[in-house]
Amino acid sequence: MSLPLIDVHTHMYLPRYVALLRERKQIPRIVSREKGDRLIILPDEDADTSTSAGRPIGSEFYEVKRKLAFMDQHNIAVSVVSSANPWIDFVEPDAAPKLAADLNDDLEAMCASSNGRLYGFGVLPLQRPETCAAELKRIAGLPHMRGVIIGSAGRGQGLDDPEFEPIWKAAADLGLFIFIHPHYGIGHELFPDTGHAMLLAMGFTFETSIAVARLILRGAMARNPGLKLLIAHGGGTLPYLAGRLDSCVKNDISKDFGLPKPPSHYLQQCWYDSIVYHPPAVAALTAFADPAKIMFGTDHPFFRPHVPEDVLDTTTWAVPEENVAALSGFDETTKKAISYENGLKAFGIKLPGA
Amino acid sequence: MSLPLIDVHTHMYLPRYVALLRERKQIPRIVSREKGDRLIILPDEDADTSTSAGRPIGSEFYEVKRKLAFMDQHNIAVSVVSSANPWIDFVEPDAAPKLAADLNDDLEAMCASSNGRLYGFGVLPLQRPETCAAELKRIAGLPHMRGVIIGSAGRGQGLDDPEFEPIWKAAADLGLFIFIHPHYGIGHELFPDTGHAMLLAMGFTFETSIAVARLILRGAMARNPGLKLLIAHGGGTLPYLAGRLDSCVKNDISKDFGLPKPPSHYLQQCWYDSIVYHPPAVAALTAFADPAKIMFGTDHPFFRPHVPEDVLDTTTWAVPEENVAALSGFDETTKKAISYENGLKAFGIKLPGA
Repeated sequence: MSLPLIDVHTHMYLPRYVALLRERKQIPRIVSREKGDRLIILPDEDADTSTSAGRPIGSEFYEVKRKLAFMDQHNIAVSVVSSANPWIDFVEPDAAPKLAADLNDDLEAMCASSNGRLYGFGVLPLQRPETCAAELKRIAGLPHMRGVIIGSAGRGQGLDDPEFEPIWKAAADLGLFIFIHPHYGIGHELFPDTGHAMLLAMGFTFETSIAVARLILRGAMARNPGLKLLIAHGGGTLPYLAGRLDSCVKNDISKDFGLPKPPSHYLQQCWYDSIVYHPPAVAALTAFADPAKIMFGTDHPFFRPHVPEDVLDTTTWAVPEENVAALSGFDETTKKAISYENGLKAFGIKLPGA
Repeated sequence: MSLPLIDVHTHMYLPRYVALLRERKQIPRIVSREKGDRLIILPDEDADTSTSAGRPIGSEFYEVKRKLAFMDQHNIAVSVVSSANPWIDFVEPDAAPKLAADLNDDLEAMCASSNGRLYGFGVLPLQRPETCAAELKRIAGLPHMRGVIIGSAGRGQGLDDPEFEPIWKAAADLGLFIFIHPHYGIGHELFPDTGHAMLLAMGFTFETSIAVARLILRGAMARNPGLKLLIAHGGGTLPYLAGRLDSCVKNDISKDFGLPKPPSHYLQQCWYDSIVYHPPAVAALTAFADPAKIMFGTDHPFFRPHVPEDVLDTTTWAVPEENVAALSGFDETTKKAISYENGLKAFGIKLPGA
């Protein structure tokens, strides 16, 4: 019998957010086409005005019953749902704090009526960093919220933005998770004629890696020892590059970051999802990370199977399938820890019905 | 007693090449300053005209006796020496074929007089791709040469440059190695005020990863099954990202690469140096790569210790020290394989005196 799963990397565009995307004339936006709605979130997706611009977006992105059907289909007991990229990055600064609060309340309400199946990571109005600590405090009072998701770019100056220090401090004080997730990708010009594959495989993981490395090198984790970072897609490339980063930092006479410990020390205090698709990469992650800090994820509803809408709920999705398979050669202790035990502990939750 | 080492990633600027760099007024070049010569090879190093522009370059870069002293100091029995970046990328196309041939002959002569301690990777005049297969054939006839080193950018259009196909075919036919090495780094704009550390740790490994992935996705390895690629710095990030790349390629409906096998299949046929600095990264590499295809490297004479010239030969260098230490927890079979056995087999050489 397959193990239950706690999915810590699973997204939704909440209905309030979808309505906003439908109204917009610029990316990010949702456009209606003959063959269905298309979601356009990356700049290069907007260049093409044909029906193939962007990606199909159906109710799997915004209806809670579709999330639950996906969970049932893949033996996922609990999902910690996060808003999906690009979050509220594009919103006018003056409108961001209220929108963030409304979306966080929406997410809490959705989770509250799920019989223990759903928990949430909210969003922050990063455009107004001075308001974020208060929103984090409010989020900590919402019973189903476990933290916030933050894009790698922050408000455009990276996560080592000095104005973000109160965010790290508040999150650490409140015990909330910061889920760090890529959105823009880097190196677009280096991926000519490679579809989306190279950008998704490398542009996104490189973006995450740089953002987190900068955050650590500038001392955010050293200054806030309780800070809980959950890093998307198995930490991008960081579990593999951590030792090289240590060495490059230690031996660089042109710059002294003044870190009390090498970067790998802080990276080993982070949490990682297990979305790495391959047994050797799971082995790499378990060799690097604290074994209690690796947690299963699916990236749902991205990487949607190429099937008609009416059979989507009963179709096996590739990401969970591949990432469950990647665990199959490991011992039971490791499999249980990654599949659900670490998630239960990290978020202080119980399996529904337990 | 420590194991002997075969160093497959170790560089020299040959005297002919150093003379050329001294004559130049543009990067790459060597400039004389009050406190010694400086090597300027990256665009951003040239912005600063002070004495700190670039990096110190001493005879450890071009005198064979300094290479041998370094080898003695670190128990390195044999080095497979490669020219260092930027190789002859900057040379006028008409001059490149003769310069490449001269440098390859220089390297062969240097190795031939080393009593079996030195072997070499030559250079190719990539500016004139149509001449490269002939130069490879000539290199195959030089008794101490084992292949060529190629920069990730190729002649500026990446390694998936269609004009390079004869290179892959000739190398495969001749059994020569292609050592793929970064030079330019990517994402410079994403590493503000981080010294050289982030660029070296990430910009370089990301550059390598993208170059090799593109080469594989465009089918170079599928078309040339005997092609032997040695990928610098533990393959950049590829051993960790291979599974994600497989999944992104398989599930991307916007592009069909028509590869007979997933990218990881070809990546698992590649050779990797062990310059990953950290036991978890060695574990990651051994979990991913063919155990016979991981070989020790030092990156000498880059990452030079910050000591005066006269004690350099008797100073312990960080890269070999850290990368020997990274192996220390592994079983004897793995340690021996990586330290020297794999290198002896791959290059058909013997330990000196054996």
